[in-house]
Amino acid sequence: MLDPVSWKSSGGRIFRSYTPALAGQGGRLRLIDQTLLPEQLQYIELADTEAIFDAIRRLAVRGAPAIGCAAALGLAAVVRPVKFNNSAELLAFAEKTAARLADSRPTAVNLSWALDRSLREIRNNITASPAELQNILLKTALDILAEDIQMCRSIGLHGKPLLRDGMGILTHCNAGALATGDYGTALAPVYVAHETGLKIKVYSDETRPLLQGSRLTAWELNRAGVEVVTICDNMVAQVMKEGKIDLVIVGADRIAANGDAANKIGTYGVAVLAQYHHIPFYVAAPYSTFDLNLADGSGIPIEQRRADEIATGFGRRTAPESVTFYNPAFDVTPHELITGIITEKGLIRPPFAPQIAKIFSQAAV
Amino acid sequence: MLDPVSWKSSGGRIFRSYTPALAGQGGRLRLIDQTLLPEQLQYIELADTEAIFDAIRRLAVRGAPAIGCAAALGLAAVVRPVKFNNSAELLAFAEKTAARLADSRPTAVNLSWALDRSLREIRNNITASPAELQNILLKTALDILAEDIQMCRSIGLHGKPLLRDGMGILTHCNAGALATGDYGTALAPVYVAHETGLKIKVYSDETRPLLQGSRLTAWELNRAGVEVVTICDNMVAQVMKEGKIDLVIVGADRIAANGDAANKIGTYGVAVLAQYHHIPFYVAAPYSTFDLNLADGSGIPIEQRRADEIATGFGRRTAPESVTFYNPAFDVTPHELITGIITEKGLIRPPFAPQIAKIFSQAAV
Repeated sequence: MLDPVSWKSSGGRIFRSYTPALAGQGGRLRLIDQTLLPEQLQYIELADTEAIFDAIRRLAVRGAPAIGCAAALGLAAVVRPVKFNNSAELLAFAEKTAARLADSRPTAVNLSWALDRSLREIRNNITASPAELQNILLKTALDILAEDIQMCRSIGLHGKPLLRDGMGILTHCNAGALATGDYGTALAPVYVAHETGLKIKVYSDETRPLLQGSRLTAWELNRAGVEVVTICDNMVAQVMKEGKIDLVIVGADRIAANGDAANKIGTYGVAVLAQYHHIPFYVAAPYSTFDLNLADGSGIPIEQRRADEIATGFGRRTAPESVTFYNPAFDVTPHELITGIITEKGLIRPPFAPQIAKIFSQAAV
Repeated sequence: MLDPVSWKSSGGRIFRSYTPALAGQGGRLRLIDQTLLPEQLQYIELADTEAIFDAIRRLAVRGAPAIGCAAALGLAAVVRPVKFNNSAELLAFAEKTAARLADSRPTAVNLSWALDRSLREIRNNITASPAELQNILLKTALDILAEDIQMCRSIGLHGKPLLRDGMGILTHCNAGALATGDYGTALAPVYVAHETGLKIKVYSDETRPLLQGSRLTAWELNRAGVEVVTICDNMVAQVMKEGKIDLVIVGADRIAANGDAANKIGTYGVAVLAQYHHIPFYVAAPYSTFDLNLADGSGIPIEQRRADEIATGFGRRTAPESVTFYNPAFDVTPHELITGIITEKGLIRPPFAPQIAKIFSQAAV
């Protein structure tokens, strides 16, 4: 699937007419600068620690799985051109680089997970030469990307049976190709259904304050030829009432042991509205999103972001300077509002707590 | 209260430090151009049919009661300087002008109500001279404005007992001083409570796509010294879950005979979320908002507005050009989600249909 020499992914089915959103190329991390979408499609190539740190921090690349891939590819890109006298020196340099990159978005679990995995591979092969370790680091990053692409595809296949021809699907924020190595999580079933010829109409909440729904989700679905209608977040209840929505699918940033799921702010409200209108509400996320250390969602920290994201988000000031803003970046949807969780291994149905416990005890064996 | 010669309102308690949002002055309709808020506070004076039509259409003045006042003042301003040979000629001109102005916005009933009332006054006094009719038209418009100011104050007094010191009140869009002749509808109880020394914190949904909640509600509350916190529309469920909201009060553009209430898009969703969180949900609106010709809300016309309000609302394009948008400007909250309707004559409680029928049959007597 992946060619380590050119660092080119042969995936990118959604973007088959051009380069994937995220790839390694020419020894550098190559990615779409998502802050410029939808006005400009611009790729940036990075091989410098501070530039990669900055790209993650300012959301040039975002989405938990994509951040993990970018960090691993970025670490390999930074280490690759450096001359080391010995492997211990390489390890020390890689550790320092990884620590800095991990600081860019402290809350994203995939970020530290991917960096830890890369460092572990160095330590496990510390007797190898620096040149061999540089190749191992690269192979590990490409493995992470390849697994992510495979994970997306599997979520798509497991979610696809939920979709029928002519359905209207509502999604919130962006859990699509731009948030992952390739296929997305919430959007993966839509892409698979689209590829098999089903006519699906996606309603995309614009997702204030950063508009990932209109800037990113609408953009990528549009490019892939999937019909997409963008609405403001406050129109969800109305489109549901009008019978336009048959199914809701969203992503997740963290899922507790009882199925409570943290995701982009607004998701919880959508779930309440879906229940009121008797519309099934699905969460799509890989196993790596589950945090079994948390019994329920009350332990998931809610990141507060800056007021100016709301007040001056797009150039013009939209409220007086003296006004206070409240800007939680995530919310938690309680498991009782969730119809099912679509994972890369299949669909998890309620009761979630025993189902999740069973799956992960089997996975550990 | 009002001086017909200068067309100046002595109301404007909220804006007591400067001119009211809406007034007649120097024979012209004078109003704040609300599209420029919060960045610029700029008044415009209008006495031309197309300019008034345009001001209403592009939302320089908006809010059901304010539109009614503006239309009546506007009609008087257009008719006033014209020389007529006889009263029939004046009536024909006024009818033509009113028909054009009534076309500017479809959902709010106050617009046609105010214009119809003005025309009725002409017809009832058709034996008077054109000059006398011009004065009658002006007096009618100023009566409508004065009654609106009184109506706001009365809604405030009837709604105030619902508020307690320290409460958090959620509102959607702007049903405040900028939406009426003076005190607002949804915000009137807040202003009255504030004047009597209660500490009230208002959570103001920003209200996409046109951001009336952050641009207008936050602006006017802030100026009046009321504590206000602005949130994105998709944060409503989260702030309710966190226990920050004790009460919801919204305005209405039209209320059917069974209590179903049309208001700014997003209101219906807020009502569903309030019910889920066991939070009382009140509508504040004057008698003129009731449309007893409609048995329920299904007959209320819902204005569809242009896609570019969503796509380019912040100055920057936020979705690809080829993406479709859906932009309903209003929704209808079914009466079963409404705890009570605060009117200028008192609180209406369920069951709404018989209560409303009783009130209006008495009013007709």
